[in-house]
Amino acid sequence: MWQLYQFPLCPFSRKVRLLLGEKGIGYELVRESPWEKRDEFIDLNPAGRTPVLVDAERGTVLIESAAICEYLEETVNQAPMISGTAVNRAEIRRLTIWCDEIFHAEVGEPMMRERMVKRLVHRQSPDAGALRQAMKAGNVLLDYLDYLLDHRTWLAGATFSLADLAAAAHISVADYLGGIDWRGHEQTKRWYSGLKSRPSFRPLLSERMEVISPPAHYDKPDF
Amino acid sequence: MWQLYQFPLCPFSRKVRLLLGEKGIGYELVRESPWEKRDEFIDLNPAGRTPVLVDAERGTVLIESAAICEYLEETVNQAPMISGTAVNRAEIRRLTIWCDEIFHAEVGEPMMRERMVKRLVHRQSPDAGALRQAMKAGNVLLDYLDYLLDHRTWLAGATFSLADLAAAAHISVADYLGGIDWRGHEQTKRWYSGLKSRPSFRPLLSERMEVISPPAHYDKPDF
Ligand SMILES: N[C@@H](CCC(=O)N[C@@H](CS)C(=O)NCC(=O)O)C(=O)O
Ligand SMILES: N[C@@H](CCC(=O)N[C@@H](CS)C(=O)NCC(=O)O)C(=O)O
Repeated sequence: MWQLYQFPLCPFSRKVRLLLGEKGIGYELVRESPWEKRDEFIDLNPAGRTPVLVDAERGTVLIESAAICEYLEETVNQAPMISGTAVNRAEIRRLTIWCDEIFHAEVGEPMMRERMVKRLVHRQSPDAGALRQAMKAGNVLLDYLDYLLDHRTWLAGATFSLADLAAAAHISVADYLGGIDWRGHEQTKRWYSGLKSRPSFRPLLSERMEVISPPAHYDKPDF
Repeated sequence: MWQLYQFPLCPFSRKVRLLLGEKGIGYELVRESPWEKRDEFIDLNPAGRTPVLVDAERGTVLIESAAICEYLEETVNQAPMISGTAVNRAEIRRLTIWCDEIFHAEVGEPMMRERMVKRLVHRQSPDAGALRQAMKAGNVLLDYLDYLLDHRTWLAGATFSLADLAAAAHISVADYLGGIDWRGHEQTKRWYSGLKSRPSFRPLLSERMEVISPPAHYDKPDF
């Protein structure tokens, strides 16, 4: 049985969970707070970051969400999520990385730092300026997703792919933390509403991170 | 003919160039300074980052070094660099990302910022504290590579892989900028000396970034 080391608001773990869900692969959650830098966790992943996917019986330890997703894609035929021509696959990977790096750096990471890490670890209040800046950046980045969805059925093209799962994972964390202003983003909103209704997404939306409550619309497919 | 948008000290472009070289794929260099944020370049890649690999005749535009490397691996059989079992491939990808994210964030990016961007763009001198910190981080990260090479022939295991190319690319940029103290890193030094002798690496080592000179040992396989 796979065990996924993660915490509820880790967007990279959410991406992996959505992929596991779509592929119908069973797994157990192991709660890990990487900021605690537990020795046993550093032994597992010297970079000290979630997610880590472990199959203890086989001695398999998979690290880095992109490597985990490629592994699952290569080993499980069900629900291919990096498919099509080599050019299609490059576009799926480009947008997945865009979410993991650009959206995360400009929106997810500052939202998590200000609203989660500062609260849980440092017992500080968030910096209003940093929150404003992250929301502003999110607005610009959602414009880009709107633009893509004006031209395509799914983010990377004609088929549902890992790029959609990655975007939904990152957006859901930012949305939980109050970092998304949905006004003026009809295309992305419609697409995200469809994502929220998927069976792979329901368990994530019903989880809560202690102390921090999401806005009322957070888990509603109709919002 | 492929065209690679890059500049001489972009480690992600170097990784792609090493892979193109190993696979024997011809390409042309197009000089791009992403900090200038040229409109035509932003049109090509909305994230405004190098590398971008373009085949103008076919209208193919590949963005994100990881997506480019996977594309080349999928389309060119020569010199497979992400090979072996699914677990081997996951390890190759983990270490490639480790270089691209951890080594770059802690060593390459600060070295480039302090010694290249500040000089070329802001006409400022580097911050000595930031340089010291990057070198200290580099020392700790090279210890990890030493440890891997104590147990393995190549970074990701028994075969030469993309992880070796990625590590060589990132180390070469930090080394150019004077950020690597080789003392005490015999394993990594021996491995890197082998890498430097490869035909794929020679053209990179002979290039210079204007205004900035590398240390004397930089391009010598024996150092
Ligand atoms: N590239 C990594 C990023 C993982 C990551 O940044 N995880 C965060 C939690 S969302 C973490 O563990 N941060 C702790 C740290 O960086 O020390 C992946 O895709 O798995
Ligand atoms: N994840 C990207 C990273 C590329 C990257 O950060 N490139 C740097 C140059 S080494 C860049 O263009 N920076 C300009 C910017 O971030 O605006 C890749 O692997 O291609």
